[in-house]
Amino acid sequence: MPTRSTIMDTNSYRGDGSAALPEADRQLIERREQLLGPAYRLFYQKPVHLVRGEGAYVWDAHGTQYLDVYNNVVSIGHCHPAVVEAVERQMRTLNTHTRYLHEGIVGYADRLLATMPAELDQVMFMCTGSEANDLAVRVAQVATGAQGVIVTREAYHGTSALTSGLSPALGSGQPLADFVRLVEAPDTYRGRDGAAFASDIKAAIEDLKSSGLGFAAFLADSIFSSDGVLPGEQGMLREAVDEVRRQGGMFIADEVQPGFSRTGEAFWGFARHGLVPDLVTLGKPMGNGFPVSGMAARADVLAPFATTLPYFNTFGGNPVAMAAGQAVLDVIQQEGLLQHSLRVGRILLAELQKLGDKHENVGDVRGAGLFIGFELVSDPEAKTPDKQLALKAVEALRERRVLTSVAGPHGNVLKLRPPLAFGEHDIDWLVTALDEALDAVLDKRPAGSR
Amino acid sequence: MPTRSTIMDTNSYRGDGSAALPEADRQLIERREQLLGPAYRLFYQKPVHLVRGEGAYVWDAHGTQYLDVYNNVVSIGHCHPAVVEAVERQMRTLNTHTRYLHEGIVGYADRLLATMPAELDQVMFMCTGSEANDLAVRVAQVATGAQGVIVTREAYHGTSALTSGLSPALGSGQPLADFVRLVEAPDTYRGRDGAAFASDIKAAIEDLKSSGLGFAAFLADSIFSSDGVLPGEQGMLREAVDEVRRQGGMFIADEVQPGFSRTGEAFWGFARHGLVPDLVTLGKPMGNGFPVSGMAARADVLAPFATTLPYFNTFGGNPVAMAAGQAVLDVIQQEGLLQHSLRVGRILLAELQKLGDKHENVGDVRGAGLFIGFELVSDPEAKTPDKQLALKAVEALRERRVLTSVAGPHGNVLKLRPPLAFGEHDIDWLVTALDEALDAVLDKRPAGSR
Repeated sequence: MPTRSTIMDTNSYRGDGSAALPEADRQLIERREQLLGPAYRLFYQKPVHLVRGEGAYVWDAHGTQYLDVYNNVVSIGHCHPAVVEAVERQMRTLNTHTRYLHEGIVGYADRLLATMPAELDQVMFMCTGSEANDLAVRVAQVATGAQGVIVTREAYHGTSALTSGLSPALGSGQPLADFVRLVEAPDTYRGRDGAAFASDIKAAIEDLKSSGLGFAAFLADSIFSSDGVLPGEQGMLREAVDEVRRQGGMFIADEVQPGFSRTGEAFWGFARHGLVPDLVTLGKPMGNGFPVSGMAARADVLAPFATTLPYFNTFGGNPVAMAAGQAVLDVIQQEGLLQHSLRVGRILLAELQKLGDKHENVGDVRGAGLFIGFELVSDPEAKTPDKQLALKAVEALRERRVLTSVAGPHGNVLKLRPPLAFGEHDIDWLVTALDEALDAVLDKRPAGSR
Repeated sequence: MPTRSTIMDTNSYRGDGSAALPEADRQLIERREQLLGPAYRLFYQKPVHLVRGEGAYVWDAHGTQYLDVYNNVVSIGHCHPAVVEAVERQMRTLNTHTRYLHEGIVGYADRLLATMPAELDQVMFMCTGSEANDLAVRVAQVATGAQGVIVTREAYHGTSALTSGLSPALGSGQPLADFVRLVEAPDTYRGRDGAAFASDIKAAIEDLKSSGLGFAAFLADSIFSSDGVLPGEQGMLREAVDEVRRQGGMFIADEVQPGFSRTGEAFWGFARHGLVPDLVTLGKPMGNGFPVSGMAARADVLAPFATTLPYFNTFGGNPVAMAAGQAVLDVIQQEGLLQHSLRVGRILLAELQKLGDKHENVGDVRGAGLFIGFELVSDPEAKTPDKQLALKAVEALRERRVLTSVAGPHGNVLKLRPPLAFGEHDIDWLVTALDEALDAVLDKRPAGSR
């Protein structure tokens, strides 16, 4: 088994004094470290002190404007007025819990399920993606009477006790659950296709079964965000999911990353592959920053859990959360953000691939819609991951007022995932900055040497 | 071990047609059941369809006004304008995560910690009380290198995989964690004092140690809300917590129920008892309905976890959540809600105790501030819990437009816990309604027969 990476040594402020910080920021960092403790990490050697956001842009305390190419929480755009107004209106009117009747949760549930295959006919609401995955795994375990869960080698599925044990991306300090098995994500750049992936899934299932744990679920984010942004071709996951079903397990689609139009090719990541999951978990972009999450399910999968175990989430599904969710769906439809993500994502991908042709250390540029992985390698032939280069590129981009970060088991993939408000007119800023950043951090070898 | 209760057969809509519902509500319930599935329960035989809230009042779709005597989430009052405005203002400005510098989280952390003993010097933020307890238990387990956790017999600490296993209140369908031990809550009505409680804590610790699990933490809500609202006298928990410390364990104060001025006697429930916890978890009233939670800790307790295990909560501590939290603290101070809770709570308690003198089936009336337990029994001498009477009283109160519900292992305690906006002028509505409700559901025996 390969050494597991740690996110502790990735893009983050180290406080080693290597970057000169404005005095006010230095003091704020000091107070922050004192009051919040060591778990709180800041991006960048020179952290960014943000004060305002709009669309795909944010501004720091010194008035500098940045292009946000990282944030999929405010997915329809920073401070989108439709969400602000919906939340404000509902907060002024009523905010209670789901033990009382309210139209909001019923209307939103109906609207949300209408975006999914008919087999997914019920939905429950929580506050975070972690809570959604925590519940989905328990539902799958009760439904199957088995324990075993398969996730990918660098998966991230949450921060609760249960889901952190299913999140190898948290690094070697995080113990994994004893009922989890890891498989390498499919990776077309390294020639790992859907058939190889399905074969590994099969082996993992057999291992779980022979160990007596049984097989409950395959839990995956279909764009494999933390594994390095690996969208693959459409349909790539079908063989693996067929195997999961054949073996009596559940497929849980974690849509926290690819959902809500992110990939442009379909409203949901699983739909890119023509799949119908047993359970679907939702989070980050669902309320454009308002804390809301959900779990859609086939009623027959949900029933064994929901008829025997009480589940009540105090803030989950409250009228304000539902209003935020509804506003997000409205905006996606009214502003045509699915089509926008596809169209602008394709143009951006083509421009970024040109950078790949120009800079030899760009190993691969891949994406679906406005979710692009830009992989940096030290040796293009051997495809050797170059984490230090990626970290330097991220810092150099920050100097050019473009915010992003890294992903993947080797931390060498730039994760380019702007709010969907990112427009065609923003491409030049990003591509020019990335071109310059690569020039700045790479040895300036003449083109002929490649 | 006594049979564990189930919340499934408590105050909830059963759909048995026993109550005539307006056609629109019946249809909404049907859609709700179809779309949300069997985990979603409604209060009351005749569910309440709410559309508006203000202060301590809510209104249903038919324009009927209710007195809310149950909701401690909107603790400073339904739709308090200070929170609405703070959230709206920050949502229009910026909403990001904690990987960027922001004043909001630092300012709020400072302000929040100032309400606690100096030993609690760091705080982290999540979205739900479940997430706070889930994290706190893991922090305590890492800090002590032990697994065992002690909770009370009818405790409720959350809905995640870990915390539901520490929540016997969820009923017999919910498996408990193998590292949990249950102790009876102290109960002055039944003569169970702090010394008896401490003695049981000691026995549970010894059991955990002899089983090889070791002892990590005693996790308790100091007002024992789900155990039946058992405030006890101030200082009652000191002996137990002293024992916990002597045995090398952590005391985790779950302040989701008694925190933020609820008890009137202190800002925090643990402070009523003169305790300094190792970890404090916060939830429900923290953002007056905005999903925000937190965990305060002694830095030395937090460090073993936080320096080795990454923890990042996407929505946790975001600028909007912090603005909501800040507004709540401001309002508590500006409106003097701690003093208000103490003053109005005392008057209310005295009035309710008069009902206790009048109706023989009222076994005990106890409380701290605006958190009162009103216990109904079938036999006052034997103190036999009367669940059916409590359920009938709750329904009869609903008919008198007063909303509350039941608590306790036997479901026979009315949990009277209004928003702190509940004023002296609301006492008459509540007390008269409860008096009439008891008259209506009890046999009308002449006073002389008692």
